[in-house]
Amino acid sequence: MSGERGAREALRRKERRVPVKGIRQLPFARIENRYPPIQLLSADEIDAIHHASLRLLQEVGMEVLHEESRRVLKAAGAEVDETNQRVRYAPELIESFVAMAPAEFTLEARNPAHNVKVGGPHVIFAATGGPAFASDLDRGRRAGNYQDMCDYIRVVHRLNVIHQEGGCPIEPTDLPAETRHLDFYRAAIALTDKTWQCWALGGYRVEDAIEMAAISMGKTRAQLKASPVTLTVVNSNSPLRLDIPMGEGLAAMAKAGQPVAMTPFTLAGAMSPVTIAGALVQQNAEALALIALAQMHNPGVPVLYGGFTSNVDMRTGSPAFGTPEYTKAALASGQLARRYKIPFRSSNVTASNCVDVQAAYEGGMSLWGTIMGGVNLIEHAAGWLEGGLTASFEKLILDAEMLQMMREFLNPLQVDEDSMGLEAIREVGPGGHFFGTGHTLARFERAFYEPMLSDWRNFENWQDGGAKTGTERANAIWKELLKSYEQPAMDPGIAEALDAYVAKRKEEIGRQSA
Amino acid sequence: MSGERGAREALRRKERRVPVKGIRQLPFARIENRYPPIQLLSADEIDAIHHASLRLLQEVGMEVLHEESRRVLKAAGAEVDETNQRVRYAPELIESFVAMAPAEFTLEARNPAHNVKVGGPHVIFAATGGPAFASDLDRGRRAGNYQDMCDYIRVVHRLNVIHQEGGCPIEPTDLPAETRHLDFYRAAIALTDKTWQCWALGGYRVEDAIEMAAISMGKTRAQLKASPVTLTVVNSNSPLRLDIPMGEGLAAMAKAGQPVAMTPFTLAGAMSPVTIAGALVQQNAEALALIALAQMHNPGVPVLYGGFTSNVDMRTGSPAFGTPEYTKAALASGQLARRYKIPFRSSNVTASNCVDVQAAYEGGMSLWGTIMGGVNLIEHAAGWLEGGLTASFEKLILDAEMLQMMREFLNPLQVDEDSMGLEAIREVGPGGHFFGTGHTLARFERAFYEPMLSDWRNFENWQDGGAKTGTERANAIWKELLKSYEQPAMDPGIAEALDAYVAKRKEEIGRQSA
Repeated sequence: MSGERGAREALRRKERRVPVKGIRQLPFARIENRYPPIQLLSADEIDAIHHASLRLLQEVGMEVLHEESRRVLKAAGAEVDETNQRVRYAPELIESFVAMAPAEFTLEARNPAHNVKVGGPHVIFAATGGPAFASDLDRGRRAGNYQDMCDYIRVVHRLNVIHQEGGCPIEPTDLPAETRHLDFYRAAIALTDKTWQCWALGGYRVEDAIEMAAISMGKTRAQLKASPVTLTVVNSNSPLRLDIPMGEGLAAMAKAGQPVAMTPFTLAGAMSPVTIAGALVQQNAEALALIALAQMHNPGVPVLYGGFTSNVDMRTGSPAFGTPEYTKAALASGQLARRYKIPFRSSNVTASNCVDVQAAYEGGMSLWGTIMGGVNLIEHAAGWLEGGLTASFEKLILDAEMLQMMREFLNPLQVDEDSMGLEAIREVGPGGHFFGTGHTLARFERAFYEPMLSDWRNFENWQDGGAKTGTERANAIWKELLKSYEQPAMDPGIAEALDAYVAKRKEEIGRQSA
Repeated sequence: MSGERGAREALRRKERRVPVKGIRQLPFARIENRYPPIQLLSADEIDAIHHASLRLLQEVGMEVLHEESRRVLKAAGAEVDETNQRVRYAPELIESFVAMAPAEFTLEARNPAHNVKVGGPHVIFAATGGPAFASDLDRGRRAGNYQDMCDYIRVVHRLNVIHQEGGCPIEPTDLPAETRHLDFYRAAIALTDKTWQCWALGGYRVEDAIEMAAISMGKTRAQLKASPVTLTVVNSNSPLRLDIPMGEGLAAMAKAGQPVAMTPFTLAGAMSPVTIAGALVQQNAEALALIALAQMHNPGVPVLYGGFTSNVDMRTGSPAFGTPEYTKAALASGQLARRYKIPFRSSNVTASNCVDVQAAYEGGMSLWGTIMGGVNLIEHAAGWLEGGLTASFEKLILDAEMLQMMREFLNPLQVDEDSMGLEAIREVGPGGHFFGTGHTLARFERAFYEPMLSDWRNFENWQDGGAKTGTERANAIWKELLKSYEQPAMDPGIAEALDAYVAKRKEEIGRQSA
């Protein structure tokens, strides 16, 4: 028998049974990452990627399908070929516009306690956005619907570690496609008082978001322009294309002063070269082109540099997430974003189809890549499953636990006379134990991270408690959080004004599509 | 619908079905970590811990229950109080002996292809050692037994990513306690030709290991002393005590020139202060005391600095593993080990009672702490469950996958003209895809990490395949590896000599205990 096990056995005999009531979680807090990021690539290698991407933009350029964007690009000095909608950019053009983007900004929530800072050392965890399906252990996987979407936002609101609603966790496919964004915005504003993300697909969806955000905050659009409140993701249609809906969304956000995370969808081997270095060159070119475009629409508008490079399984064509390649790409993307002094967006991703060990270890590989890459905004930080097609209620809890652990990890270790506790060690002496010392008693309540999901009981107690897996425990946790959810207060006048806006817009959109 | 999901959906439609035959895994390889480790603490903070631990050794000292050790310590200049077996160390005494330990050494396997380097940039993954129970999905948890132990070693042999047997994965409690180490050594030598670890509890167990290792290698003990072949862990009985069996084991290993990982069992809040800084001070004091003692036995003998600091759940007294505190302690321990230029040992740990998401995320937090802490030897790298009480067959596969991913992560990203692939991007152009380009075709077979356990199929294909979780897939994998296991060849004369040695020793030990 090894000594390590012997010591553990001795300790386990001392284990007491203390049931925990309710759901234990950390309080809401803004997070700062003071650790130096991992420098995966040398400064020369980062420079090489930078210069290759500028060359790509100069020689090949982007296909910009959105006419207004081409007009703005041409006015700013880009070379625009209307015959094939191709736009080519001189390196100085890109560099001068990219330099206008701010390094840090604040996003205001309708509850000021939930305002978040973007950039610098700040880290924001946003819930997943975009999935078409919902799933949980009880009801399995099902098409996205309004009820599930609302319940998901309620649980997101209850999870203190999540800073931001992520742009509709579950698409309400039971509602009309043309107006369901209004139902989502109305729900996001009502069901949480954290910041929320809007939809970039089409200018009118962005306009509705900004109008509704203004109503919810009791502010004018001019006030919002000076102090942003919502955020969205614009994906280039990789390789090297900006399509019309995304071009419209980008333009509307930029003109309204709202930040966009410019995120090329560069899956190595499919939409980008089969090498991660090649995918990064392409990612960087596309991100810089979109960042510059936003600055042409509105100089100084806040943006984020989005890194989403991953790879496909070359045997099947399936996208892979949370791979070693993904981790390396995230670290390198952070280096690139810092080169441009632009806040960095990355993601917590997995290709797993269920909430299992794969979902956890692929998520862990992603999270470490983002955090040690100096991320500022983690999109899909909680809930994403199945390559983003599904929002899982249990995955939301699993991720919230992993995020809590990361947040605690980012809390620097204190090293001083008091924490080194020489006197306590002297007092206990060889062979003693520290349970009852004054040094312990003064600190034990807040000494260590206390988990929400992890079960640290010994085997016998765990078995007596039903031998539940982490995923089964996550199921109980989200249901308890949903059951005890209370909707944050809202001024009735604001609620009425939002309802009136939604009703008016549904009527208008219905008339247009009729 | 978000653009990110739209792109994924487009890609998933292209997914082909390619079944993979057999178990796909990476080949055996030595690993180097060329990334700079995370400097969690400042140089001043590391110095503060160093000086506090030396002060602790000088003022409080260690209780050394093993008489020979006290004799050696006294001869070397330590202050020994025989009335209470307390040993106090002048700082210069510790520093001068610690300085004798080598920064790097090689461990030889009976198959030279499986030799491993310890220290510097080298990283070794050792299977779990010490568990009293075995478990798998089919048969549940059961007391350790010889058959399970042998099967576990067979799977460890088959998993190429694991470099080293870890000192008996499952204790054969169905065999007599006094002689079961012989059965384990005999099995470890026969069933794998990788390096293996021996038992430190009691000098005779170490002597038997060295004799049997010498027979297995066809070498003399003098040859082994010059070129080590086995390794063990010595735990101090924290706080500040070295007990007799561990003292004997340490002495026997040191005199035989075999390396020991000196590993204080400093669980913050129980055997060490409730602060991680305090636990690190105590860990450092105990580790340095044991490292110095080994050098007093045999100057220049290889050793490792073991960091095992974790914490207990202060509500229940349960030990916790893979916590944020564990990760921080691992990173700081690596900084301490590098201060002394001694190879660093850490571990892949979890408190989970089953192979679930918790096992995966606690393992992930541990692994990142070890790797970015600059670890040289990861003990329990694969298989440990339930705070080390159980070796799980499915956990072994889960960990092997996570280790493979880490190994791939440590493979630096290549950035040059060729990998940046500008020509390929130019060739494909806006809106195209890269599946069929020459750049892709020339590289696709080895472009990306190919998983052993992860399932990247889309939901429908995964469901058609039985909707198996990662843990269920791990179950199928270890059974397949065990089924297709082939015992490595051994000279029949050596096998006979080993059998004769075991028989003789069992007879001798039986006579002594009769």
